[in-house]
Amino acid sequence: MEKIRIVIAGPRGRMGSEAVRMVEETPGFELAAVLDRKNNGRKLNEIGPFQESDVPVFADIEDCLQSVKADVLIDLTVPEAGMHHARIALSYNVRPVVGTTGFSQEELDELKELVREKGIGCIIAPNFAIGAILMMKFAKMAAKYFQDVEIIEMHHDRKLDAPSGTALKTAQMISEERRKQKQGHPEEKETLKGARGADYEGMRIHSVRLPGLIAHQEVLFGSVGQTLTLRHDSYTRTSFMSGVKTAVETVMKIDTFVYGLENIME
Amino acid sequence: MEKIRIVIAGPRGRMGSEAVRMVEETPGFELAAVLDRKNNGRKLNEIGPFQESDVPVFADIEDCLQSVKADVLIDLTVPEAGMHHARIALSYNVRPVVGTTGFSQEELDELKELVREKGIGCIIAPNFAIGAILMMKFAKMAAKYFQDVEIIEMHHDRKLDAPSGTALKTAQMISEERRKQKQGHPEEKETLKGARGADYEGMRIHSVRLPGLIAHQEVLFGSVGQTLTLRHDSYTRTSFMSGVKTAVETVMKIDTFVYGLENIME
Amino acid sequence: MEKIRIVIAGPRGRMGSEAVRMVEETPGFELAAVLDRKNNGRKLNEIGPFQESDVPVFADIEDCLQSVKADVLIDLTVPEAGMHHARIALSYNVRPVVGTTGFSQEELDELKELVREKGIGCIIAPNFAIGAILMMKFAKMAAKYFQDVEIIEMHHDRKLDAPSGTALKTAQMISEERRKQKQGHPEEKETLKGARGADYEGMRIHSVRLPGLIAHQEVLFGSVGQTLTLRHDSYTRTSFMSGVKTAVETVMKIDTFVYGLENIME
Amino acid sequence: MEKIRIVIAGPRGRMGSEAVRMVEETPGFELAAVLDRKNNGRKLNEIGPFQESDVPVFADIEDCLQSVKADVLIDLTVPEAGMHHARIALSYNVRPVVGTTGFSQEELDELKELVREKGIGCIIAPNFAIGAILMMKFAKMAAKYFQDVEIIEMHHDRKLDAPSGTALKTAQMISEERRKQKQGHPEEKETLKGARGADYEGMRIHSVRLPGLIAHQEVLFGSVGQTLTLRHDSYTRTSFMSGVKTAVETVMKIDTFVYGLENIME
Repeated sequence: MEKIRIVIAGPRGRMGSEAVRMVEETPGFELAAVLDRKNNGRKLNEIGPFQESDVPVFADIEDCLQSVKADVLIDLTVPEAGMHHARIALSYNVRPVVGTTGFSQEELDELKELVREKGIGCIIAPNFAIGAILMMKFAKMAAKYFQDVEIIEMHHDRKLDAPSGTALKTAQMISEERRKQKQGHPEEKETLKGARGADYEGMRIHSVRLPGLIAHQEVLFGSVGQTLTLRHDSYTRTSFMSGVKTAVETVMKIDTFVYGLENIME
Repeated sequence: MEKIRIVIAGPRGRMGSEAVRMVEETPGFELAAVLDRKNNGRKLNEIGPFQESDVPVFADIEDCLQSVKADVLIDLTVPEAGMHHARIALSYNVRPVVGTTGFSQEELDELKELVREKGIGCIIAPNFAIGAILMMKFAKMAAKYFQDVEIIEMHHDRKLDAPSGTALKTAQMISEERRKQKQGHPEEKETLKGARGADYEGMRIHSVRLPGLIAHQEVLFGSVGQTLTLRHDSYTRTSFMSGVKTAVETVMKIDTFVYGLENIME
Repeated sequence: MEKIRIVIAGPRGRMGSEAVRMVEETPGFELAAVLDRKNNGRKLNEIGPFQESDVPVFADIEDCLQSVKADVLIDLTVPEAGMHHARIALSYNVRPVVGTTGFSQEELDELKELVREKGIGCIIAPNFAIGAILMMKFAKMAAKYFQDVEIIEMHHDRKLDAPSGTALKTAQMISEERRKQKQGHPEEKETLKGARGADYEGMRIHSVRLPGLIAHQEVLFGSVGQTLTLRHDSYTRTSFMSGVKTAVETVMKIDTFVYGLENIME
Repeated sequence: MEKIRIVIAGPRGRMGSEAVRMVEETPGFELAAVLDRKNNGRKLNEIGPFQESDVPVFADIEDCLQSVKADVLIDLTVPEAGMHHARIALSYNVRPVVGTTGFSQEELDELKELVREKGIGCIIAPNFAIGAILMMKFAKMAAKYFQDVEIIEMHHDRKLDAPSGTALKTAQMISEERRKQKQGHPEEKETLKGARGADYEGMRIHSVRLPGLIAHQEVLFGSVGQTLTLRHDSYTRTSFMSGVKTAVETVMKIDTFVYGLENIME
């Protein structure tokens, strides 16, 4: 089978450098070039910690796609660059995989229309953590059968907001299946305020903050005589890469516009 | 909305008595009669711990269904009774919910044919533990995205066989999505034999046995930087009842034959 | 070795009947008699579910201790009976093991003085759940090395008060070693009120309530790069019996008055 | 209070650089100098990532201790250097904190004798992970009350040996309190070989290996109706530093030789 040829934007960035590593370590993937506004004309092994890769560096995506043959563009940088790169990539029949939460509805619509014209796949995703996405998806499914659920999210103690975004997103997805209803004993009393956690349509969310912790979440469902627990532990940023990999493999097989990784996960 | 009228077989048995309790506690369900070969003609409150229910007791299902109007028959007893009861129930347009692993393929085929003729729902299920079924279903789904998985099942120390039936069923369901592959370091060594657990197509199963434990299972998936854990804890036999309840609600809405609760859970 | 001969008060009660079972199943223990105000003069196998035991039943403890030779009295009934029985037992040189939270300081002092006179062991304990006591003891020890700690207690949803008594007791024991200090980010914000749980001298307590759960508690300690978790799961009332057993064995070896099982656990 | 002045050996190494960071971030600690055979005469901020520290670098420990006033020497390098540094430090009345498993009994005896002569503290420790040490210590204590125990250790899948060293050490410490006895049902059968894990004097050890995992261990104790679980999660190498910090604080207060951090933890 021919390898999937990939261009990566921002190879010196935190996510970009992980993406370079992932592409180089994945059989079936081949790095074709990188986009870096600062190092046009150099080789990748001259600009970063990637000593064995001599793929060309381009500052401009059009230069790049005219010079090298590519199947997929990975952009995990910032919304502005991501939008520009996705547009041009599609015009060159290169399939975009872009990680961002920052696109406006107009931008999403524009990309959708471009995809329709070109008839090739395009994946835009706010979150590539496959395990977290599965946890949320399963939580929503389980909520059909378990009315009672509590969420415990646990993070390092430098986190400012409680509950976490993932906990809120999970609660919202569960609420699509669950009828609103106060949980616990109807007459329960908090002898210490806050013990029963935050209330989200009657279900409860608890936020634990401790040094040492990284990013963890448990969703606990209970019914008579049993509990079902879904847990995701994220230890490092590299956990996002298996999602990026799945997106690259999928974008080659589809000819539609997809927003959100959960929509390509069955 | 009219209540669903239910006949329960074996009201003095362990599962049957739980079913009586569940039906009486569920708004929308109504107990119509019970089947008990020993106490024909008496009232339920005369024969067991159900002091407030005076529904009639029948030894014979045909007598029963000629005397009382019923929508659903619940049979959680033994295969012979279950088959006989399901057959007669269908002939009276009463929908069977039968819990058994003991039907032969011929029996299943016969019921399927009866269902086709009558055009009403019928559910036969070997396992009504909804949480366990969801855990297995989710494990199979997650295996599409996580190649590496280990199962830890934990039971009381009076259990004879290891691994548990649920662990083996889970492994088998995972193997439908996962390619066979030895896990762990290719050159890993057990300095104490058995440390790495049982091998099932390269994935590992660990069986913990301790007094105090009841019936618990964890399925752990790992990929770079993250783990996803699915856990089911079964504390009492009553955990089966939410599955029976779901089956009763579902059997009223379908007009087909269903084998296995997982097939009515989306 | 000679067996420890035991008298049990309240053999028909929930705890008393478990105690009878425990004594009969423990090698080295022997049931000598039972105290039951209703069934004086009968045999144990005539009054309860204990079909194989023909030890005598006494309504009065003095009658009992004059008739049978005994080493230890177990009383898990109510404070009034417990105090009366402990007093008389000591006067007959029988060592009391009494489970109650209801003794006044005067009563405790009186027993202590009796113990001093007689020079034999006596154990009064509000809680016989050895696992829970160890969890609290370890939590206090760990607090010397981990400043940051959160408690998650999980109970069935018929529980009225949050946090649980055990969680509060644990927090109090931790606070004997931990300096008061607000945990989490100094500027953390709850976007949903209560998310960060209850505040106990700066540490946080979270109360989960779900059907299916029984009585569980986790104490999580965190410091840079690591977490330490202590967890106790209580599944049934019978979990108290190993504590009673330990108390019986210990009361034979000591000649002092002990209040609280934690004081005989090293 | 005067600050504790500290010399660190190997500031460019993995552990040494973490130690530098820890000392600089700990109120009450002050970095006095570093030992680095390659960069004699330079400043710390010239040789590594420590841009704000201008403490002097010495190649030779005698030069160092003649030039700067110091209270404690931290050496987390290799046994040869550690032994040499500990010897010289003691002769200069500087208290050594050395992390190594590599000292011979003769070397330990020599240091012990030096400590006796000088009358100052010295701590040699094979393991500075305080959480892991507490887990083992608590496991040993719990084994007095729980006869049945299983260990589940979980590591990344690049680990070669199973079970882990920590699991074996834990089992050995438990065995000092537990009588040898086969656990599980006397007639239990493995339908898949290895399911019940490794046998260590009748208790069982299970080794889980998955990508994503780092270094985790659970010790599960069970008795009738309850379980007690001790769990340690180590996420990064920096987890060792709180142990080093405790050792530094302790070594200032003692005047004896200590081998093993567990001996200074109450």
